[in-house]
Amino acid sequence: MNQCYGCNTCESADKPLEAFISALPMETSHHRVEKQSTKCGFGLQGVCCRLCANGPCRITPNAKRGICGADADTIVARNFLRAVASGSGCYIHVVENTALNLKKTAQAKGALKGMESLEHLAEIFGIEEADIYQKAEKIADAVLADLYKPEYVEMALTEKVAYAPRVARWRELGIMPGGAKSEVFKGVVKCSTNLNSDPLDMLVDCLRLGISTGIYGLTLTNLLNDVLLGQPQLRLAPVGLRVINPDYINIMITGHQHTIFVDLQDKLISPEAIAKAKAVGAKGFKLVGCTCVGQDLQLRGALYPEVFDGHAGNNYTSEAVLATGAIDAVLSEFNCTLPGIEPICDELKIKQICLDDVAKKSNAELMKFDFEHRGEQSEKIIDKVIESYTERRGIIPLNLLPEHGNDNTLTGVSEGSLRNFLGGNWKPLIDLIVAGKIKGIAGIVGCSNLTAGGHDVLTVALTKELIARDIIVLTAGCSSGGIENCGLMTPEAAELAGPNLREVCKTLGIPPVLNFGPCLAIGRLEIVATEIAAELGVDLPKLPLVLSAAQWLEEQAIADGCFGLALGLPLHLGLPPFVTGSDVAVKVLTEGMKSLTGGQVIINPDAKESADILEQIIMEKREGLNI
Amino acid sequence: MNQCYGCNTCESADKPLEAFISALPMETSHHRVEKQSTKCGFGLQGVCCRLCANGPCRITPNAKRGICGADADTIVARNFLRAVASGSGCYIHVVENTALNLKKTAQAKGALKGMESLEHLAEIFGIEEADIYQKAEKIADAVLADLYKPEYVEMALTEKVAYAPRVARWRELGIMPGGAKSEVFKGVVKCSTNLNSDPLDMLVDCLRLGISTGIYGLTLTNLLNDVLLGQPQLRLAPVGLRVINPDYINIMITGHQHTIFVDLQDKLISPEAIAKAKAVGAKGFKLVGCTCVGQDLQLRGALYPEVFDGHAGNNYTSEAVLATGAIDAVLSEFNCTLPGIEPICDELKIKQICLDDVAKKSNAELMKFDFEHRGEQSEKIIDKVIESYTERRGIIPLNLLPEHGNDNTLTGVSEGSLRNFLGGNWKPLIDLIVAGKIKGIAGIVGCSNLTAGGHDVLTVALTKELIARDIIVLTAGCSSGGIENCGLMTPEAAELAGPNLREVCKTLGIPPVLNFGPCLAIGRLEIVATEIAAELGVDLPKLPLVLSAAQWLEEQAIADGCFGLALGLPLHLGLPPFVTGSDVAVKVLTEGMKSLTGGQVIINPDAKESADILEQIIMEKREGLNI
Repeated sequence: MNQCYGCNTCESADKPLEAFISALPMETSHHRVEKQSTKCGFGLQGVCCRLCANGPCRITPNAKRGICGADADTIVARNFLRAVASGSGCYIHVVENTALNLKKTAQAKGALKGMESLEHLAEIFGIEEADIYQKAEKIADAVLADLYKPEYVEMALTEKVAYAPRVARWRELGIMPGGAKSEVFKGVVKCSTNLNSDPLDMLVDCLRLGISTGIYGLTLTNLLNDVLLGQPQLRLAPVGLRVINPDYINIMITGHQHTIFVDLQDKLISPEAIAKAKAVGAKGFKLVGCTCVGQDLQLRGALYPEVFDGHAGNNYTSEAVLATGAIDAVLSEFNCTLPGIEPICDELKIKQICLDDVAKKSNAELMKFDFEHRGEQSEKIIDKVIESYTERRGIIPLNLLPEHGNDNTLTGVSEGSLRNFLGGNWKPLIDLIVAGKIKGIAGIVGCSNLTAGGHDVLTVALTKELIARDIIVLTAGCSSGGIENCGLMTPEAAELAGPNLREVCKTLGIPPVLNFGPCLAIGRLEIVATEIAAELGVDLPKLPLVLSAAQWLEEQAIADGCFGLALGLPLHLGLPPFVTGSDVAVKVLTEGMKSLTGGQVIINPDAKESADILEQIIMEKREGLNI
Repeated sequence: MNQCYGCNTCESADKPLEAFISALPMETSHHRVEKQSTKCGFGLQGVCCRLCANGPCRITPNAKRGICGADADTIVARNFLRAVASGSGCYIHVVENTALNLKKTAQAKGALKGMESLEHLAEIFGIEEADIYQKAEKIADAVLADLYKPEYVEMALTEKVAYAPRVARWRELGIMPGGAKSEVFKGVVKCSTNLNSDPLDMLVDCLRLGISTGIYGLTLTNLLNDVLLGQPQLRLAPVGLRVINPDYINIMITGHQHTIFVDLQDKLISPEAIAKAKAVGAKGFKLVGCTCVGQDLQLRGALYPEVFDGHAGNNYTSEAVLATGAIDAVLSEFNCTLPGIEPICDELKIKQICLDDVAKKSNAELMKFDFEHRGEQSEKIIDKVIESYTERRGIIPLNLLPEHGNDNTLTGVSEGSLRNFLGGNWKPLIDLIVAGKIKGIAGIVGCSNLTAGGHDVLTVALTKELIARDIIVLTAGCSSGGIENCGLMTPEAAELAGPNLREVCKTLGIPPVLNFGPCLAIGRLEIVATEIAAELGVDLPKLPLVLSAAQWLEEQAIADGCFGLALGLPLHLGLPPFVTGSDVAVKVLTEGMKSLTGGQVIINPDAKESADILEQIIMEKREGLNI
């Protein structure tokens, strides 16, 4: 290897990864943290406005309004609404594509692998249809029809999918969403310059966008995915850079849209493809999971054991995955595909193909997924990946890290697989909670970032603090990738839990942290919470359940967070969104929300303090339930 | 009056207004320019990214990428695409509401005042229908259906409305837009973090958004407005603060959606309303025009002489309009309604009512326009305005400026009224251009801002430079408001034109600057240009026609600008959009665009230099046409 690029990388909770990255000969995001460490205070507080040519304007004690007259509250709320609308848009794009792919598959009478999910959706949508293909098509159509409604027409499925007491509260607040795409559209228009100036009005819109994001972008995407790709099944699986096997032609996948890979997954393990691979000296093809689409594949890994060799890491592990030298191509179709992978791909001659035209990488080939031509596209991709393999292997040195990660992470956890594991209902879990064996539930969700202490530092530390307090942790998002690589999802991690939770874990043979997979699976957590609340006959805010997006990164996470607030849940963040310059926004998010939805935002960058606060809330909720 | 708030206001091309504002006892946007004069260089160049929690990141010579790896080109292109998509969204919102109001009026068999426009639209849309209401409804439905198409389905009306040679070029470039709302949605998603990183791909999207903005948001909005509200008619009208008559109950209107005011306009001059006004000591009600909806009303002022007393000024005149003390209410329904009017309204007890919920002002009442209840709403508004009048008049001192503006601005110029004036076709104008009496045409469009030399300073100076060079100027947008208040749209302004243009103006009795009204009327300029090009049998880029959005302000203007570029026209800007940090973006916009569409961006803050450049381009185009 060449000498290291520079050793001032940021800290990572994943020490083997930290050592690996700091020794790399090329720049990664971990190296760039230091150079970007001087942050703009105006940007951090959200009081910089660059919506018009009079700007940028910045609010200071001496200039309390921008030229147009917008004050800090207006500027912050506009910036925040734009972020939430954009983040919502990302998820709605995913559910639209997912529904389209399900619809086209049904029309083509392709494989539908999740019959329980199909029946479940048909039931809640009120679709009666004997033929499974027609049923699937009607389900997809119902979702698509809602997405395309005008903003002033309420979507029909929200009240069918969401928990009834929540729907009642949302109706009281007037935040039942209209057509999800038009809600995004309206949000973006509303926060344009010289239009809306009412911070409260805009913050309430964020809740509405949170609901459409959550119910459609999250919950429904999971269920549609399950119909097409199969329901998750529990299993122990290897994770981390160890999953990369250089004997194969390796394709790293990144994004959020598993349904785009349906045909390719099959083709890669066809005798023809394997023969082609063998002809160039490889044993075959493997998909290496990265970011959320990798988590999604891992979740269903039991169904795809031959083509999937495991999840390597989260967004900020992707550069390290490539740096092993054993990845021959990157197939990406959405965020969180870092631009930072581009120069590394150039340097290591890794072919990049983008499968969705919203996410064209600057130096990559765009091959927009086209259902009608999926077979030809898969063939083309296979040939291009083989070409990349033959051009680069032998020339590009390998830099593997086979000791990274672990071999026995529990994966495949979903609302369905977990319920089945518990015997078909939530009573065993509820009994453990009532008995105090499990103090409460924390959803550690969202992204990985590099600024809240470093890569996964706060996420992993907070998770350890929580399980040590007998709080069981459920994860969804890139946070899962970090936590699993740090070993907290292995059965052995029970040792790190408090005595009560440890006993539960050992008895059941499960880890104290359960991995629901991609950020989309926040929708699965919502189902779990809803089913438990229904069993108890209470509304969601009554549950001893807290959320933390400790290391949230993207606007999508903010939209997710708004879903959490709409659900009435406490939401911890390690770093605040860019709103601290507005007293109104801070007050509404941290205090006022309690009386609106029951939710609240808690900002704290310290793992122990955060755990104290979340534990305190859980104890109060337990008290409220008289347990 | 109290003493002046502070005399450090920015310069205005409108000297009486400048003196008036600098003597005001309250703060206005003109006062705030100084305190916001230190601009952030990163923001100005567009190389600040605050899309994620790792940020804000800023590109410097020492840090060429953000933490994620995005470089200056990616960051600039993302920020620019988000601005264009948002600006497009604003116009698409306007055309959607306009089409809805036309549709509901047709269903209710309400008054349709523009039969020629109705026939014209029916013809180009291919709608054969005898009944005018059914015809109007089908026209509205055709527009609405297009707006709601998915991004992957081309809108049907684009090729029917746009100039055929342009459509051919757009097809070659692959930029025919899909459903306009979905295009906005897609643009916003695409520029989210860790998705697209290809600056070229995103800049090309800006052109696509420019086309949907222009054809639907601009051109079609005008024509739909004409059907409902009547076609513009030429007339001389008073403009400026002089139009405010304190004997009346005065309502300042701001926004972009004239169709929202249809019922109210009628009700305000009903005997009942006038009796109510008289009962409190006023002669009746008057609408005082401000920003673009005021321009739209002015454009059709011949049809509404009783209720409309004239256009007072543009966006950055609105605070002065209120400061006269003679405005009793503000009815706003969209941008460009400055937040700066809010404290002034509080201070002067001016009632604010917002008629569109995307544009809720923080201290205003929201009464979202509801077609079905328009009558009751108008009654309520009238009562509330009367209440405001009685509460404030006599208490709030008047501070009128009756000498401001002029009495004989030519208004009502549209593609139709101008063509009729010329005898029913463009031949007389073409002959004048061919003969060199008119060297060429400049469209001075877009907003007014306060930073390109001050309020309307560059716009007015450039206009003077151009007419002095025998270039006739057509205006649309808040630029119109500044130019008209400065007297350049009076027949007497012919004296400021070059000898050839002066002769033309004097012969025809017209000013050298023709006011097409609101920014929406950029769509009318497009029709004029298209019809002239068709008459000559050439494509638009061949015409001796240039655009200048000298003092563009809002994201909407950037979307307009992208329409201009898609049309293949040279576009001058006094200040650059926030793109100068990207070599790729600058090169594409100023150079590469020529080979793509024929368009180009020219940035120059100096009036004389800019006029030199634009004249040079016009001379080259003349040469190309052998004239």
